Amino acid sequence: MFDELRAKSFDGVGITREAYGPGEAMAHAMVARESAALGLEVATDFAGNLYATLPGADRAAPRVLIGSHLDSVPQGGNFDGAAGVLAGMATVAGMRKAGFTPARDITVLAVRAEEAGAWFPTSYPGSRAALGRLKPEELQVKRQDSGRPLEAYMREAGFDPDAVRAGQRRLGPDNVAAFVELHIEQGPVLEADGIPVGIVTGIPGSRRHRRARITGEYSHSGAVPRKYRADAAVAMAELAYRLDAYWGELEREGHRLVCTFCEMATGAQSGFTKISGEVNFSLDVRAVDPAPLGKMFNELHRLKAEIEASRSVAIDLGAETSSMASPMHPAVIAGLTAAAERLRIPAKIMASGGGHDAAAFAQAGVPAGMVFVRNQNGSHNPHEAMRMDDFAAGAAVVAQFAAAYAT
Amino acid sequence: MFDELRAKSFDGVGITREAYGPGEAMAHAMVARESAALGLEVATDFAGNLYATLPGADRAAPRVLIGSHLDSVPQGGNFDGAAGVLAGMATVAGMRKAGFTPARDITVLAVRAEEAGAWFPTSYPGSRAALGRLKPEELQVKRQDSGRPLEAYMREAGFDPDAVRAGQRRLGPDNVAAFVELHIEQGPVLEADGIPVGIVTGIPGSRRHRRARITGEYSHSGAVPRKYRADAAVAMAELAYRLDAYWGELEREGHRLVCTFCEMATGAQSGFTKISGEVNFSLDVRAVDPAPLGKMFNELHRLKAEIEASRSVAIDLGAETSSMASPMHPAVIAGLTAAAERLRIPAKIMASGGGHDAAAFAQAGVPAGMVFVRNQNGSHNPHEAMRMDDFAAGAAVVAQFAAAYAT
Repeated sequence: MFDELRAKSFDGVGITREAYGPGEAMAHAMVARESAALGLEVATDFAGNLYATLPGADRAAPRVLIGSHLDSVPQGGNFDGAAGVLAGMATVAGMRKAGFTPARDITVLAVRAEEAGAWFPTSYPGSRAALGRLKPEELQVKRQDSGRPLEAYMREAGFDPDAVRAGQRRLGPDNVAAFVELHIEQGPVLEADGIPVGIVTGIPGSRRHRRARITGEYSHSGAVPRKYRADAAVAMAELAYRLDAYWGELEREGHRLVCTFCEMATGAQSGFTKISGEVNFSLDVRAVDPAPLGKMFNELHRLKAEIEASRSVAIDLGAETSSMASPMHPAVIAGLTAAAERLRIPAKIMASGGGHDAAAFAQAGVPAGMVFVRNQNGSHNPHEAMRMDDFAAGAAVVAQFAAAYAT
Repeated sequence: MFDELRAKSFDGVGITREAYGPGEAMAHAMVARESAALGLEVATDFAGNLYATLPGADRAAPRVLIGSHLDSVPQGGNFDGAAGVLAGMATVAGMRKAGFTPARDITVLAVRAEEAGAWFPTSYPGSRAALGRLKPEELQVKRQDSGRPLEAYMREAGFDPDAVRAGQRRLGPDNVAAFVELHIEQGPVLEADGIPVGIVTGIPGSRRHRRARITGEYSHSGAVPRKYRADAAVAMAELAYRLDAYWGELEREGHRLVCTFCEMATGAQSGFTKISGEVNFSLDVRAVDPAPLGKMFNELHRLKAEIEASRSVAIDLGAETSSMASPMHPAVIAGLTAAAERLRIPAKIMASGGGHDAAAFAQAGVPAGMVFVRNQNGSHNPHEAMRMDDFAAGAAVVAQFAAAYAT
């Protein structure tokens, strides 16, 4: 199935499976076809999420969901998302083959449009729609390249955005016992530590400034002495260097967080032999624990005031956007840990770096958990890689968990 | 004459007088016309430089030259360059009016194409041609916007680039007693100090990197912990912040220099939620004294090695370009200082920040000096300003000097 996905979504450089577009539709059709071949019950909800269910003994009991997303960023990799859905397929296929009937339904869930950042500027529209938590106005977010709204793409793909408007939901704590998502790690930690599998403690919250600006004064790089300068570039350098140093301090104190100046660029009027009068930048700070997030932003505001005064510049941070951290459920973490121990698969207990659909489930009150699989070369790029042995180890942990949790 | 220049070279935003183009030609024609009206001897050399001479008693004695350039940057100001030529006109007009015959010729010199950085990427082609120091291959430098060579523009303007190729020269230590250039300061020092006039000690040398690059690794801003990052943006910040701090140290030790990171920008693949894998930047360091230039570059290379090791990035500084400092001649400095004292015009002894034609004369062994006039709002922009009282004070110092020096 990985090979078929790759063959059908290779774009000449990497893998492209557009959210609510042809690439994602191809992947959903493949999973539906293979699910039907396994004799699973196949269904789709109003937002296009796909459900492939192995019926349990008690059809009315809250089910176990195993899944992830099938879309990708443009020119991305084959495993980001798809690995979680195929881990679900492997789980139910194994149970089917073994003639195992779980106590409750086990459903493979293929979520729509998780790579929202690459297509539609909103988070987890597919899973939040199913959970009844997508706001009607979010149907109007525009796809980044075309400018056309999410609603139009949902409708053209054959789904029913009006159900979002009507407040419908399909999933929630009342009918889901657990959501488990397997995903490539996207970072280098498991690879560096030599551990195939991670069990995720939580998905970080974030505090962000996407459009920040430092304004100084353009002037002659030869003629203006140090004390008369309002140099936006050096002010930028001081802010980034010192906030980064503070991050280092917090890490040494035992806090876990990340802080990234993603973009920084002197303004359009800048040029050689000019002191820069403008720098634009973006800042992304994330942590599972809100305490270090707060400390970083206190330091950011302290440095802003200090640098504005000492360097005669104005620092306009622009709008702050933030998201809440989503801790994974202790019972799911414990269950996944026990499963790995039983299978003697080395597993690292770790925080997620990126966001995942599991965050939407956790925010909705559904017990959620994640299994990371060691991967190489990062993610969201054509060089993204994962060894099949590691995938098998991660999928085995998920299957062991599901078998135990569904009893 | 300032008003006429402004009216005829206003471009809708600022002043544009293209080197070897229509704006500069208009200004030269005006100066030639007014010089003829004053009864001066008007001549042009093979490179288009204009000479308007008040004959002295001894026509064979080395002359005193007073002048500057008449071209401007695009959308620049009216006074940068032109003030020096008009100060020369004021000097000889005053002498003419007073019936004063100097002991030696006094020539107003309007140099071509000083704003080479804005049009042709070479320094002082007009004055260096007259001094026999423009290299034939420099005739091939391409105008930045059109890509056509300097030689083509010189020829179309009616001049003779073949004379450059033939090694001709018009000026040198053998026939010039002194070159004096009045110029707006281009910086805020005189304005801040409340002094109308500056007497320049020298024009700084420079060491520059126009195309430097830091290469790290693009990766996920959430998923990659601190210790695994190769963040080019923070490496850039550290380099700029710490080199700037070292400049501050050198200043406190009494060194005089400027250090500017003119441009810095994360690479084309950068984006929000990505760690930056590339930053491009430019660096311009200048000092009259070569010692602090050397210290800064030692520190730059030390920081480069340290940051490459600590942040897992590669810093490629690219080609270094440099220019020699040009001290003004002690006798000219002393003469200008004595002139200001005699006239009771407050004058500050100071280094130049930018480069000027006086540097080309000094490099050729001609005794050179400069008078700065207090100006507002910097230079090379439409808001550049100069008070006429300050211009008159500066021009008076030049005239007093010339009268004394030409005896």
